[in-house]
Amino acid sequence: MKAINVIQEKSGSSLTIDEAPTPEPAPHEILVQIKATAINRADLLQRKGGYDPPQGASPILGLEMAGIVEEVGSKATKWNPGDRVFGLLAGGGYAEYCTIHEDMAMGIPNNLSFKEAAAIPETFLTAFQALDWLGKLQNQETVLIHAAGSGVGTSAIQLAHRLYDARIIGTAGKQHKLKTAEALGAAYAYNYKKQNYAEKIIEDIGSDSIDLVIDFIGKPYWHKNMEVLAMDGRVVYLSFLGGHKLEGVSLVPILRKRLSILGSTLRNRSEQYKIDLTKDFAEKTLDLFGKGALHPVIDSTYDWSNTEEAHQRMQDNKNTGKIVLMGM
Amino acid sequence: MKAINVIQEKSGSSLTIDEAPTPEPAPHEILVQIKATAINRADLLQRKGGYDPPQGASPILGLEMAGIVEEVGSKATKWNPGDRVFGLLAGGGYAEYCTIHEDMAMGIPNNLSFKEAAAIPETFLTAFQALDWLGKLQNQETVLIHAAGSGVGTSAIQLAHRLYDARIIGTAGKQHKLKTAEALGAAYAYNYKKQNYAEKIIEDIGSDSIDLVIDFIGKPYWHKNMEVLAMDGRVVYLSFLGGHKLEGVSLVPILRKRLSILGSTLRNRSEQYKIDLTKDFAEKTLDLFGKGALHPVIDSTYDWSNTEEAHQRMQDNKNTGKIVLMGM
Repeated sequence: MKAINVIQEKSGSSLTIDEAPTPEPAPHEILVQIKATAINRADLLQRKGGYDPPQGASPILGLEMAGIVEEVGSKATKWNPGDRVFGLLAGGGYAEYCTIHEDMAMGIPNNLSFKEAAAIPETFLTAFQALDWLGKLQNQETVLIHAAGSGVGTSAIQLAHRLYDARIIGTAGKQHKLKTAEALGAAYAYNYKKQNYAEKIIEDIGSDSIDLVIDFIGKPYWHKNMEVLAMDGRVVYLSFLGGHKLEGVSLVPILRKRLSILGSTLRNRSEQYKIDLTKDFAEKTLDLFGKGALHPVIDSTYDWSNTEEAHQRMQDNKNTGKIVLMGM
Repeated sequence: MKAINVIQEKSGSSLTIDEAPTPEPAPHEILVQIKATAINRADLLQRKGGYDPPQGASPILGLEMAGIVEEVGSKATKWNPGDRVFGLLAGGGYAEYCTIHEDMAMGIPNNLSFKEAAAIPETFLTAFQALDWLGKLQNQETVLIHAAGSGVGTSAIQLAHRLYDARIIGTAGKQHKLKTAEALGAAYAYNYKKQNYAEKIIEDIGSDSIDLVIDFIGKPYWHKNMEVLAMDGRVVYLSFLGGHKLEGVSLVPILRKRLSILGSTLRNRSEQYKIDLTKDFAEKTLDLFGKGALHPVIDSTYDWSNTEEAHQRMQDNKNTGKIVLMGM
């Protein structure tokens, strides 16, 4: 099969479409012909050598896909050749074929294209894990979602809105990202470049009002998050795009407000964890995707021969929602 | 009734036994004649004006008691006058009588004296909440318990040992406290004054080996805790006796090890929370107390006319286990 290969050079890394061995499905796996995959920030790190794939995973880039079942493993019973499936991968999405555990594949709702389905798994499962499994978001709680225009951000806003009827506050640095956040269900959207979001929250909603924060930023937001969190509040960290070194931190709010500070990633979880998460997610959301109440926010689509350009767009922080690769 | 009154003076506060109105049981409460109460660090803060009782609670010091049911409220059905009960109070233990919700009172196992029963609620419920409800300690996990010679520390070691068959590491600053920790079930006990406990843990058990830390110390232990925590590890903060201001903190371990940093107190929880916690605790532990498999560690007993002296002993950090007041 063809797959995208990373070539390390002195001046950086470059991408090229090369031949690679077609994977063979293990007994409980299926072989999928990939119709679309999508880009994640982890791909950008991995090609620089900064984020190795977990043990046993394909070294090929790509953490999600949508496609057609080509072949089923000897003990796989859930799918038939020709079925349209999508799901999370530990690696291997930038290729013509991939294998996936039959329980980690989800059936694509009829109303969704491969392009749309490929844009769902990584961001929606990450957002679902953060809001539900880790953040224990309760019905009608108030949630603050940073990087509200990102793939995970737009997914988290939709899930918080549709599954928990939450009061949602988003932050982003660009006007059109704030508009997207509001269109998806955010009651308030603040431009962190122009406004102190903690002051705005206290003004608009009240102090100690945030039950859950989904944070990708880290350092610049620690103190403000502590300020606005409510009693029994939770912070879920998914990355530290703004840095991770803090000075002058007081632990007092953690005790006084009985806070939970949580960190998580999805990729290095066990296969069983991902299977359980996928099942829970599918039960709670596939109907809503089928009805159009949930939908992936797609920024742009590139032919996979232009993956370099697609990566550059994410590197430059220009995307609102997912960047999809097609044409394998 | 008689109760201990705090008198604020320029040179500090003093304690005196005065007359106070005998409380009246609300419909679901019982009136208890107190036979013994025990001292908590919160009492020392409260008498200095640094830890106000929660709304609706008695302003009298004292967070736990054991005694005899004197009278039952109009809708209370669980107890009869003469029953031996013990339990957690939001305040009011340093007195001849107190009221308590009937569901927050527990029956004293036959083998336990009032003195012993009064030494149980605050430390064991705090330890149980930290290990079980917050820390989600699993069978045979490894738990690091700081201040291992304290009331909560000695309770946590016993619960971790008897309820979860955990591998337990204790830290304390005095040799006899370390011996107590080992006698109660700690596999390793380190003197933090003489040893770097993180280095010792890595040497004796391995790196990234601690599933749960119960910490009362705060600042001096943050980095060492981060060092020894395992994947999916948890830290539960119950106080910051060593300070709360951190410099040069990296958030990276929180993400890389998928950590949970949790803070909690027991006193300012809702009555319903305390009732639920008490019920769960009673179900899981009263049999073990009855068989002697769990027992309060009692440091010393004072007549309540000598409460000042008893407070001084705790202030000086001289106690291993609980200090009990009797003679009301």
